[in-house]
Amino acid sequence: MKFVVDQQVEDIEMPENLKLNTFLQEFHSDCPHPECNFGFYGFAFGQSPFPVPKLIQNALIKNADKGAYAAVPGIPELRNAISKYNKHYFDMDIAPNRIYVGPGTKELIFNLLEILHGTVILPTPAWLGYLPQIRFLKKNYHMLPTRANKKISPSDLRKLALRLQDRQKILILNNPNNPTGLLYDRLELEEIADVCKEQNITVISDEIYALTTYDFSKFVSMAKIYPEGTFVTNGLSKSHAAGGYRLGYVIFPQHAVDLKTQFKKILATEYTAVSTPIQHAAVAGFEISNEMNEYFEVTRNIHQIMGEYTFHALSSIEGVKATKPDATFYLLADFNSFAPDLQKAHILTSQKLSEALIVHPFHTAIVGGDSLVLERTDFSARIAYVDYDGAMVYQNYLENKPKSNAEKIEFVKKNAPKVVAGLDMIADFFGKLRKDALYDTESSSSVVVP
Amino acid sequence: MKFVVDQQVEDIEMPENLKLNTFLQEFHSDCPHPECNFGFYGFAFGQSPFPVPKLIQNALIKNADKGAYAAVPGIPELRNAISKYNKHYFDMDIAPNRIYVGPGTKELIFNLLEILHGTVILPTPAWLGYLPQIRFLKKNYHMLPTRANKKISPSDLRKLALRLQDRQKILILNNPNNPTGLLYDRLELEEIADVCKEQNITVISDEIYALTTYDFSKFVSMAKIYPEGTFVTNGLSKSHAAGGYRLGYVIFPQHAVDLKTQFKKILATEYTAVSTPIQHAAVAGFEISNEMNEYFEVTRNIHQIMGEYTFHALSSIEGVKATKPDATFYLLADFNSFAPDLQKAHILTSQKLSEALIVHPFHTAIVGGDSLVLERTDFSARIAYVDYDGAMVYQNYLENKPKSNAEKIEFVKKNAPKVVAGLDMIADFFGKLRKDALYDTESSSSVVVP
Repeated sequence: MKFVVDQQVEDIEMPENLKLNTFLQEFHSDCPHPECNFGFYGFAFGQSPFPVPKLIQNALIKNADKGAYAAVPGIPELRNAISKYNKHYFDMDIAPNRIYVGPGTKELIFNLLEILHGTVILPTPAWLGYLPQIRFLKKNYHMLPTRANKKISPSDLRKLALRLQDRQKILILNNPNNPTGLLYDRLELEEIADVCKEQNITVISDEIYALTTYDFSKFVSMAKIYPEGTFVTNGLSKSHAAGGYRLGYVIFPQHAVDLKTQFKKILATEYTAVSTPIQHAAVAGFEISNEMNEYFEVTRNIHQIMGEYTFHALSSIEGVKATKPDATFYLLADFNSFAPDLQKAHILTSQKLSEALIVHPFHTAIVGGDSLVLERTDFSARIAYVDYDGAMVYQNYLENKPKSNAEKIEFVKKNAPKVVAGLDMIADFFGKLRKDALYDTESSSSVVVP
Repeated sequence: MKFVVDQQVEDIEMPENLKLNTFLQEFHSDCPHPECNFGFYGFAFGQSPFPVPKLIQNALIKNADKGAYAAVPGIPELRNAISKYNKHYFDMDIAPNRIYVGPGTKELIFNLLEILHGTVILPTPAWLGYLPQIRFLKKNYHMLPTRANKKISPSDLRKLALRLQDRQKILILNNPNNPTGLLYDRLELEEIADVCKEQNITVISDEIYALTTYDFSKFVSMAKIYPEGTFVTNGLSKSHAAGGYRLGYVIFPQHAVDLKTQFKKILATEYTAVSTPIQHAAVAGFEISNEMNEYFEVTRNIHQIMGEYTFHALSSIEGVKATKPDATFYLLADFNSFAPDLQKAHILTSQKLSEALIVHPFHTAIVGGDSLVLERTDFSARIAYVDYDGAMVYQNYLENKPKSNAEKIEFVKKNAPKVVAGLDMIADFFGKLRKDALYDTESSSSVVVP
């Protein structure tokens, strides 16, 4: 029997992280060098290395007997906890009935895109998950390339909005940003909000990395600046290191009453509700407690130490530009100054660069530019600095907090040897590439294109 | 700010169970009679009353630390366990790579409908979840009303298929059936499969109630009869009484290799994967064990005892026809012979009948015909016989298994007094209705229409 597949399904591409995943799995099993049994230096996966907070684990354990269906928007305890969490950490008064819980922020963003009519504005580079959703839903969309500072330019946003015919436009703002690790400060948000108000742009503000902001006092939610037009999404996946639990939430703008009814229909039609035991576990993650406070502080401090090391290591490679992360566990590295050398080595796309880095002897996994919604020929890459044993490093940090710069470098070398080695490999790769290009001796090239 | 909502979202109706839920909540809080603090006799909710099997709870407890994202199609242990489960209980050889795990069967059916091109054939009465999905996805669809026996007529199916232009047609088969409780036997499935082969009809066989079949030896999966064209969905929600866990699976036809790739894209685009701790818990639910065997046997025996009592109680009301359930915890009661009496009492639709039954003094919640995709004026209703304390009844059954008919009736009276009282209320309601209609004294009507 031959099955006929709907056209829009055929048209969407496999999300790039899955492609990469498959590629890495195949590579790993195929490498013929016995000394390479360590696999690869992992800068590719956007997953926090820390264990799920004990508080959350214990709440899950205590609620394993909750087999009944939960209410569609989420259990009341959880919506209340999220409301208080928003008050405590983000200084926002969000009534629990403005909060909807879903099986991950990803699905909630998908649901918002299902419900909201209009053209999507996607600033680039971008997290690799938005575009397949937009394409699958056959929505009109426009990229909004960021400027050299890798942030949205309000005047570019205005220009683009003026060109769009749709009476509703939807800006996907990801703050703090994946892949750049950058944070939009209050002033920058205000400038963006001014354009949004003027041009009637609805904002989906994906703030899943909010609590990872290294100097947390600097984080401001877009919903504080532009409450009438902003949907905020957040969840357990990044700040709580529980991506596998699958729990996110969305905050609706205060006056979107009718929209909430519509949204509830979507959730009821597609998935009923989030897993009940998981919802009870999440309550513990959003309730204010000393344990969670410590967890946020320790993990963000470690992310910052790893991020600074990574930033300096990459910036010290001549020709590499990197964003200096304010949050998350990523930065964006720009290798475009090597474009002529890469072309000489027949590396013409960012995908090929990723492939050249993953093979022997470099064994280094990065997420290349086209996965970040950049041009295929843009040699930028997301570097996730998370390849270490999170439980152990958390403990080591608690026992002996590094203070000086020298102590922090020592901390990284001791606790994240694979991060250090992988960054060395990237330096080696580009060093050899430049050397080869200088001698222009292609036949003896030490960079082998698979 | 005014938000513009996509038209297909506006067009779908709230799934009827949610409407009912809201109605019941409002009713409960509004009832002015202090003696009514018990709320209502619940025949409306399709939820197993039993506790989640200890084996599953313990597996969840043991895996609370699993915070990492799972593989998109499901963790290998779970796909293996589901494969063996299908071998053991359904005598089917299903390679694990034909199995995809999702956050509930509902979402997997939605995903199948997203991916499969073609016109949907929906036999009625039907579970209230399919139609909002079909409408939201703007799919072409046709109802296929069942005959007097409440089963699909193969010749009606053929006639309908011949009228449809689409080269691919999708039949939603729900076996055992919600709302009727009926099971299609092998011969009936073969006759349906013959039409499907002849007319190139793809089948989504929703077999979520398979393990509740009272005489389990009689259950046959459609995938055994029509392996080349059947997608089977099943999960933890009904047989394992863990609807709140949100875990289902779909089995793909053997040769649908390309389709699996497409499906994986959808899952990755919409929700990444099912909650990792929940997947580990589910392994214990699908692995073959004496505990699960006993659980299936005890719970289906209790469902059968409750079902037989309910069937006889309803059938003994003059003018009521009821399906005699072979599985599930539902039956379909047909009150259409009361149509003239109902009309006299200004009860013109099944929704109004539900409302008349829920108010004082009847306090009885049923799911009316239009929620089951029947005509609004069809006075049929789904009766779910689950309003009892499942944990206690399970224990009582183990301690003293009723054998004779008299013992079984005694068992129901002792263990499910609300089921007994609710059925008495339904008898009262129709008794009064007929009496009022005979005297035709509308002003003194004892049936009050709210």
